[in-house]
Amino acid sequence: MDYSSKLLENAVNEVSRLPGIGKRTALRLVLHLLKQPAEHTSYLSNALLSLRNEVKSCKQCHNISDTEICDICSNPKRNRELVCIVEDIRDVMAIENTSQFQGLYHVLGGKISPIEGIGPQNLMIDSLVNKVASGEIKELIFALSSTMEGDTTNFYIFKQIEKYNITTSTIARGIAVGDELEYADEVTLGRSILNRIPFEQSLKS
Amino acid sequence: MDYSSKLLENAVNEVSRLPGIGKRTALRLVLHLLKQPAEHTSYLSNALLSLRNEVKSCKQCHNISDTEICDICSNPKRNRELVCIVEDIRDVMAIENTSQFQGLYHVLGGKISPIEGIGPQNLMIDSLVNKVASGEIKELIFALSSTMEGDTTNFYIFKQIEKYNITTSTIARGIAVGDELEYADEVTLGRSILNRIPFEQSLKS
Repeated sequence: MDYSSKLLENAVNEVSRLPGIGKRTALRLVLHLLKQPAEHTSYLSNALLSLRNEVKSCKQCHNISDTEICDICSNPKRNRELVCIVEDIRDVMAIENTSQFQGLYHVLGGKISPIEGIGPQNLMIDSLVNKVASGEIKELIFALSSTMEGDTTNFYIFKQIEKYNITTSTIARGIAVGDELEYADEVTLGRSILNRIPFEQSLKS
Repeated sequence: MDYSSKLLENAVNEVSRLPGIGKRTALRLVLHLLKQPAEHTSYLSNALLSLRNEVKSCKQCHNISDTEICDICSNPKRNRELVCIVEDIRDVMAIENTSQFQGLYHVLGGKISPIEGIGPQNLMIDSLVNKVASGEIKELIFALSSTMEGDTTNFYIFKQIEKYNITTSTIARGIAVGDELEYADEVTLGRSILNRIPFEQSLKS
């Protein structure tokens, strides 16, 4: 594309570096900003800059936080003996939205993925193993996505902590609530039959 | 959604004000920036800020430009007697990409759209009429999109300039090159039959 302005070209190039945004979308977004009052652009720029420069990672669970210790970790009502391992902060938000979990989290920051060049040393695994070693955790819930990378990461962590005497569990996989059996994929349906639960238990949840 | 950080929430809110970007996409983009080196965020913010604060609108054609008069208007090789009226700068870029047009442009900045609260006074129509009145233009090409708003805008401008002795034309509508007739919509096919051109002429283009 030929741009009539270097400033425009530069802005389009920067915006199109974001994932899932091509040059055309970037141009549309940038031209939208030009039509809005100048404050909109400065609010946007400042919000991004202050997030990038001031945001902290919770020292205990590595969740994104404005403080050294995040709200969840510093909440005295949460069960400190129950820790849920998740990939990233979006998973924390998803689980928090259910209001079904009263323990703490441990955010790994990704999954082991040799293709993307992410090894165990790039993830927050050591601090998890240290937490387990210190004896403060009773149950560890694996809540990574059930992909090849997720399973590899689960297994890697499991191998590191199996010598300690703690309970481990994974979140239940099965047919989603409200879904019809005939449209479910075989693996999910198979797992939901293998991991069936007592009928009385299903009445409680 | 519950955010673990006010800075994060603020950034997501600002990004999701952009058209076509919801909260979930905004969160994905913002978390992507957090994973990248901090320079990426500052390049992005600075590019947007400098565009918004420093970019100019060409005094003659209202195209986006880094200078008072844009490269097209200041090019002595362009035909100053032929002016193409377009909605916005993306249309200029699209026509320039064809290399088929050697005249100048006039960017209106939108279409008359009562629903969106855009009237003739919000568009660059007066300066166009002044240009026509000064006698420097011989032919005016209407290249707005063929929607209700585009047609209204065309008609409004036409009424303002019909008293001056200039040629007016609109870009040809018809079946796109390479398209099959059976899949064309009736209005387009109908127009392409009504506005058929001599066969010899089609051989030249």
